[in-house]
Amino acid sequence: MSRTVTVHASGTYEVRIGRGLLADAGKEIRAVCGGSAACVVTDDRVGPLYADGVERSLAAAGYRVERFTIPNGEASKTPENVLALVRFLAQKGLTRSDAVVALGGGVVGDLAGFAAATYRRGLGFVQLPTSLLAAVDSSVGGKTAVDLPEGKNLWGAFYQPKLVLCDCDTLATLDPAVLRDGCAEVVKYGVIRDAALFELLRDPAAAASEEVIERCVSIKRDLVELDERDEGPRKLLNLGHTVGHAVELLSGYTVTHGSAVAIGMAVVAKAAAKRGLLDAAEAEKIVTLLRTYGLPTETSYPAESLARAMAGDKKRSGSSIDLIVPRRIGDCAIVPTAVTELEALVRDGL
Amino acid sequence: MSRTVTVHASGTYEVRIGRGLLADAGKEIRAVCGGSAACVVTDDRVGPLYADGVERSLAAAGYRVERFTIPNGEASKTPENVLALVRFLAQKGLTRSDAVVALGGGVVGDLAGFAAATYRRGLGFVQLPTSLLAAVDSSVGGKTAVDLPEGKNLWGAFYQPKLVLCDCDTLATLDPAVLRDGCAEVVKYGVIRDAALFELLRDPAAAASEEVIERCVSIKRDLVELDERDEGPRKLLNLGHTVGHAVELLSGYTVTHGSAVAIGMAVVAKAAAKRGLLDAAEAEKIVTLLRTYGLPTETSYPAESLARAMAGDKKRSGSSIDLIVPRRIGDCAIVPTAVTELEALVRDGL
Repeated sequence: MSRTVTVHASGTYEVRIGRGLLADAGKEIRAVCGGSAACVVTDDRVGPLYADGVERSLAAAGYRVERFTIPNGEASKTPENVLALVRFLAQKGLTRSDAVVALGGGVVGDLAGFAAATYRRGLGFVQLPTSLLAAVDSSVGGKTAVDLPEGKNLWGAFYQPKLVLCDCDTLATLDPAVLRDGCAEVVKYGVIRDAALFELLRDPAAAASEEVIERCVSIKRDLVELDERDEGPRKLLNLGHTVGHAVELLSGYTVTHGSAVAIGMAVVAKAAAKRGLLDAAEAEKIVTLLRTYGLPTETSYPAESLARAMAGDKKRSGSSIDLIVPRRIGDCAIVPTAVTELEALVRDGL
Repeated sequence: MSRTVTVHASGTYEVRIGRGLLADAGKEIRAVCGGSAACVVTDDRVGPLYADGVERSLAAAGYRVERFTIPNGEASKTPENVLALVRFLAQKGLTRSDAVVALGGGVVGDLAGFAAATYRRGLGFVQLPTSLLAAVDSSVGGKTAVDLPEGKNLWGAFYQPKLVLCDCDTLATLDPAVLRDGCAEVVKYGVIRDAALFELLRDPAAAASEEVIERCVSIKRDLVELDERDEGPRKLLNLGHTVGHAVELLSGYTVTHGSAVAIGMAVVAKAAAKRGLLDAAEAEKIVTLLRTYGLPTETSYPAESLARAMAGDKKRSGSSIDLIVPRRIGDCAIVPTAVTELEALVRDGL
């Protein structure tokens, strides 16, 4: 039994959530992708656990299988690695009708997706997320990218997968720190759109459940369908991300994405409370829930440095940047904020 | 007075063809792009002629202007240059609402277009083609790419411009060899779709006229509107290109694109005639017209080498490749051809 969320974006595709899905991945991929070859893209932590099984299943479905492995971690999301991957696809003779299969967390999915979007101007792409963060966020909605030395996710494409299979069995073996990272994004969905989900999350055991993943994916689906190219309501998904990206950048990416987003949500919630936009008790509930999951909610970077890093964010438009600000749990606003105002706002939240 | 062809693809945009259009480029770009900054991408041959004027016009329209210059020639269409360009855009702080303006021939347009498609997952893009080839072919239809060591145009994206301004004054100063290159593509339009255009081209002075450019762009528009992602009738535009790309690859890109396409059209026409698919007199007319423009119609590469290079073409799908074969002047067919058949077919055309 699995749960299915159908996404109608450029192309319609299914996100399937359940246990044991990797074993039948080949058959499922064959049903949505043609072609004769499939390249599994994975990392050196996830690959040893699951790649052999996925490849056997692809081979059983008639694919010639190739594998491309990157080192685990954000440091692999580079232009050099995406170039190495597209050259690998060319060397292995993959054609436009073949498929790229991302097996791993957000880094693998973002890198493989950008390569799939651009190799021969696009070929079939399937996501097999193995982290909670990838399951609830990066594998759905078609944002792909690598980092530039100038900033995170600055080079990429909108490119929807043809299928997402979220095998919840893979989440059970996650490193606790990696699981924690995903919990930040799960909490985010509760804050932006779903007060009942937020309540559900007070039981920490619930965060990686099929029900919670389905609720998160459904919220993301709704926002992506409204605004695939991130010009309107989809921006709500950036709650905590503008401050978060600044923290990641200032730390040289030693602070993980989830931790940085948690800090970002806490800073914005506290700033909103200080400015009377959010009830102080609600802000406190957000901070408390993040701490329940062992996530950080404070940073020692000064407001000035954070604001300067935020000004370089890709969500900036001219001299303004759209910040996502909670009005209450389950309801956030998109607030265009002058770049010159950022420092004062961040200071209120520190 | 200018002529306008409107293209309805992902987004609707105008291709304007006329004299003196560069002088008002800033105003025209402002009308279709928002933002506060514009980056002119050009090369070291075209830039010195036209970039100052275009930048003055952009500044007059309120843009902060940046310039990125690559060396003239196909050798610049590299992953390294597209990475350098997206990093330049990041360093100059361009945001999603700003614009990239390609000022030059096909190489500049393809490179700038790929950068515009992928920097921050896409920002405004305008084409100012200054070569005949760019005017009639590469600036319209949204194909962008760079070359990989493994083959031509293997890394790119479909990304439509917001505006194309073809200033015919720029064509008057073209190097004769560059003009000749464009003539190959112009002849191609006649062969695939427009016997009357083919007749018009018997007067060599007509090739770079506004009327001819408009006819070519209109044909391309029709095919792009039918099939933006190149999965059906748009493939007709590949007449001569599969053999042509093989010639370019084998020559280490010392044979220009137009010359290679001319050779490709001649080879395919002769093969089609030999196999009774095309009247021999029609094949002869195609070869003769190409020669009128000083274009080559023969190659000394052996059929075996050409076929091997063709097998790596990005238009390949599994074990088959769609060749475009003339049935008569003005009418071509898309013929799926087994990779194993290519050598015999090429041999018939040599």
